[in-house]
Amino acid sequence: LRVGPTFREWAFLIMLGLTMAILSMLTDMAIDELLILERKLYRLCVDNDIIIVPYLVWTLIPVSMIVISAGVARYFAPQAIGSGIPEMKAIIGGVLLKGYLSIKTLIVKMIGICLTIGSGLPYGKEGPFVHISSAVAHQLGKFMMHGDSGVYENESRDPDILAAGCAVGVACTFSSPVGGVLFSIEVTAVYFAVRNYWRGFFGAISSATFLRVLNFFKDSHGSNKGDIMSVESHYPTHFPTKNPFVPVELPIFALMGIILGLAASLFIFLFKHTILFLRRNKLSIILFKDYWFIYPTLVSLIITSITFPQGIGQYMGGDRRFSTFMDELFLNCTWTRNVSGSCDQILDNWHTDDTSKMFVSLGVFQIVFFLLTILAGTMPISAGIFLPVMIMGACFGRMVGEFISILAPYGLIAGRPDIIIYPGIYSVVGAAAFCGAVTRTISVGVIMFELTGQIVHLLPVMIAILIANAVVSLFSLSIYDTIIEVRKLPFIPDIPASSTIYHQITASHIMATPFIIAKDSTIGEVEDILMQLDLKKPIKAFPLVENKESMHLIGSIHTSHLIRLVKNVIGDDARLKEAARRR
Amino acid sequence: LRVGPTFREWAFLIMLGLTMAILSMLTDMAIDELLILERKLYRLCVDNDIIIVPYLVWTLIPVSMIVISAGVARYFAPQAIGSGIPEMKAIIGGVLLKGYLSIKTLIVKMIGICLTIGSGLPYGKEGPFVHISSAVAHQLGKFMMHGDSGVYENESRDPDILAAGCAVGVACTFSSPVGGVLFSIEVTAVYFAVRNYWRGFFGAISSATFLRVLNFFKDSHGSNKGDIMSVESHYPTHFPTKNPFVPVELPIFALMGIILGLAASLFIFLFKHTILFLRRNKLSIILFKDYWFIYPTLVSLIITSITFPQGIGQYMGGDRRFSTFMDELFLNCTWTRNVSGSCDQILDNWHTDDTSKMFVSLGVFQIVFFLLTILAGTMPISAGIFLPVMIMGACFGRMVGEFISILAPYGLIAGRPDIIIYPGIYSVVGAAAFCGAVTRTISVGVIMFELTGQIVHLLPVMIAILIANAVVSLFSLSIYDTIIEVRKLPFIPDIPASSTIYHQITASHIMATPFIIAKDSTIGEVEDILMQLDLKKPIKAFPLVENKESMHLIGSIHTSHLIRLVKNVIGDDARLKEAARRR
Repeated sequence: LRVGPTFREWAFLIMLGLTMAILSMLTDMAIDELLILERKLYRLCVDNDIIIVPYLVWTLIPVSMIVISAGVARYFAPQAIGSGIPEMKAIIGGVLLKGYLSIKTLIVKMIGICLTIGSGLPYGKEGPFVHISSAVAHQLGKFMMHGDSGVYENESRDPDILAAGCAVGVACTFSSPVGGVLFSIEVTAVYFAVRNYWRGFFGAISSATFLRVLNFFKDSHGSNKGDIMSVESHYPTHFPTKNPFVPVELPIFALMGIILGLAASLFIFLFKHTILFLRRNKLSIILFKDYWFIYPTLVSLIITSITFPQGIGQYMGGDRRFSTFMDELFLNCTWTRNVSGSCDQILDNWHTDDTSKMFVSLGVFQIVFFLLTILAGTMPISAGIFLPVMIMGACFGRMVGEFISILAPYGLIAGRPDIIIYPGIYSVVGAAAFCGAVTRTISVGVIMFELTGQIVHLLPVMIAILIANAVVSLFSLSIYDTIIEVRKLPFIPDIPASSTIYHQITASHIMATPFIIAKDSTIGEVEDILMQLDLKKPIKAFPLVENKESMHLIGSIHTSHLIRLVKNVIGDDARLKEAARRR
Repeated sequence: LRVGPTFREWAFLIMLGLTMAILSMLTDMAIDELLILERKLYRLCVDNDIIIVPYLVWTLIPVSMIVISAGVARYFAPQAIGSGIPEMKAIIGGVLLKGYLSIKTLIVKMIGICLTIGSGLPYGKEGPFVHISSAVAHQLGKFMMHGDSGVYENESRDPDILAAGCAVGVACTFSSPVGGVLFSIEVTAVYFAVRNYWRGFFGAISSATFLRVLNFFKDSHGSNKGDIMSVESHYPTHFPTKNPFVPVELPIFALMGIILGLAASLFIFLFKHTILFLRRNKLSIILFKDYWFIYPTLVSLIITSITFPQGIGQYMGGDRRFSTFMDELFLNCTWTRNVSGSCDQILDNWHTDDTSKMFVSLGVFQIVFFLLTILAGTMPISAGIFLPVMIMGACFGRMVGEFISILAPYGLIAGRPDIIIYPGIYSVVGAAAFCGAVTRTISVGVIMFELTGQIVHLLPVMIAILIANAVVSLFSLSIYDTIIEVRKLPFIPDIPASSTIYHQITASHIMATPFIIAKDSTIGEVEDILMQLDLKKPIKAFPLVENKESMHLIGSIHTSHLIRLVKNVIGDDARLKEAARRR
């Protein structure tokens, strides 16, 4: 019976869960308040005759919030900039990033995400929350885990603690304890010890439990008192458990996987090259260095101008801010056939009174946010990219679903008009596949089950995710690995492209020429080989083998060294020496 | 763009999924037919006046099936005996077990599980299916993956392929592709490369897809033609998504976790010692060696006699066989208050006309099957232990749930009589916690979500699993590691008891005495140390350090060697020599 140290770990994980539950709740409340405030202000002046007034209210509030967020990060903790997942991958991989897990960074990142997400721009809080949670884990760990010995208080020393932190971070964001653990493993770990598995789960479940209890108290004292408990899942769906999809639809989901895989490759490609461009462009270098506030102002002004509800914004979901679109995309109602009247509000928002106009809305939304999310991703503020990607995927899925629903209003099974198409399922599938492809993870599927509170769409979701992942793997790294690459974070890369086939590569596959040097090669043979060399394509080294029969590789020999050796034996000097000896 | 070998792997995984989907379907159909046949025969003669007739029909059919299963395994492939998971863990760990993945073993195991599970005894097919699927993966891999090079056609060479095989095996058993992958990683891997993750998912999703399509064809041509598609989950539940449990209930689930963790420890302890007893007992050694059919006959006769529905069996769910109990334990109906009349059949089976009698039924069932499952687990046949364990846990959960439902018929929230207790949730929680504890896995939770098709019970399930796991980790290994231990399978064990605390162990914690030898110790000091040794507790070796100040360990020195060295310098011979020199 071994107890002692284990209890200390449990206590640590419970404390981590509790802290993150509180932080997560506070962040959500702050973001909600900011978004509500913005909307109220905008609605106050939306009817103003001079269109410039609502325009200024719509744009300037978010712009100032973004600029403040950028300023705080710049002056107090530049480590808080960005998603956080790539850096955590580097740290867990064993690299020490100075000040990255400090309390200062933690506070700056907290303030940062409240402002950036509260601004309503296309940002998410998953990545930042991974960072925040890891910092909390690190700080808590200092007190709770290492107590008396100072040797281990070192930022890169505690991968177990940080791995638990990452898991809790993802779990908090979407209240997805199981998917969170798996996702954090997929994005931060290269190799994984199964015996550490439970830590992430313990922390994640603690935080989920505390969140649930906190919500219980909040709700029973708050406005929705009658409704004792809010539903656990973030975007609950209500698809029927019987025939939500039929096997005939599976190829459509697979095709969606292919398309979204290609789209994800394009997304990552554009993202990478936009960042590289900004790094190399002289103007932007000056801007970033000396006039830090210009770029955030400009970009956020562009984004808010485009989404201005009285301009192009009317085709993009109206006067709501970005992060609020998720629920209605997933909802189980067919927009083109508002049977029960349950989706009136949505139809109003998305101009679905006219079918063709609705498709325009959905299309414009996707294309515009595809580009805006990339642009937004280049800003020097703390912000994540997971949610925007998910919303784009969901939007694509909704479009496909509604389209098929129009084509086949009575479903795809002959003689069974009761088995209809559910466009909501397509939306969930699209969100999962695009997220999975961009982050190159499979566990997004599990997050999706927890997020929707349903598991009926398991098969379509997993098929689309796997295919999208397979497609994107042909073209690019994950978005996080891409960031590691372009930021040149110190990171030991994985052995490339896993395949058992690689075990079968033989030396001849990677040899440039068939020449080898054996220990029993004669000088004549070596000379012959050297004579045959193409001087335009010089070979740096030759493999050296035990003997010509066994061919056991024992090392390599540089061409220059080989030439020198041969010269020593049969070169001019050697000949002169030999001549002198015989004289 | 690197394509080539990847496509070969995809094709392989799809073929694996297809093969396993077909095998899984055939097995299920065979088992169903056998169970139906048995029941029909029994019902034909249940009303016979002479009780011996139904008794013989009830007992002898299963007994003969078990004996045939044991005989087939004994004479054709002893490798097919047992669950299969421990052996797969050994093989994936790098050990070569002869003939374990051969086609002969595969066929024998297929026949074996049809007979053993079809007999209605407390056996499951999860473990065997892991074995079967791995064998299929190995055989398929021979053709599809290694094509031209013979070097790698070696049973222990392809852990990637086998890991995918295991995942597909679990996934097929409960149509739980996601949980299956995770479970197979937990029970077979020690360390895990994240880049191999997708293989398991790809295979599992392929098999799930094919199973779905196969079921579609089967159903649209079979008896339930109207019902185009069977529901995907094995034991679908229908709990409300709103308030299926309240936070006040969470401590109860935690307590269930503790109790089931203790029960699992007891289960594993008894299982281990029963097997060890049978291995050491002289009578049983003779029985197993020379009269192989006696033990299976005896044990299966005992089990079927105890479950005889006109005997004690009437308190254990009546004349159904073991594996059919699962659905009704999970059902969302409160047995003690049969409001809608939906659980009439169950109530009849479990004698719930009288509340106290129902608790007797549930209690007797648990205790009897707790012991019978252990007894059944000692038999030399191919059979798994996962399902029986799950059913016991579900039964315990149902008992607790019904009990609380009686105590608090109007729920636990004052003033909200509409929020009631759902005993079905307790049943799911119990099943998950007991399974998780016995196998020491967390992913059982995910399997449970896929099995029930709902995720509303995530929090209670995960809390109970984690606590049960924590409790069992204090007392014993997992059931699979226990089998590895008692069967003395060659296996490189993991570094024990994971904890970051272990980094802080210093040498003094594991040193038996405070004595050390330094390079600058004088002979006098060494002699003093040797003099102080307690001859009854001899010390084998001393640590050797650089010097008495730095204390850097540079090696160890055997006591005998040390004594010899000291003797060489100041022993009798040395003194005589010195005397001779001076003379």
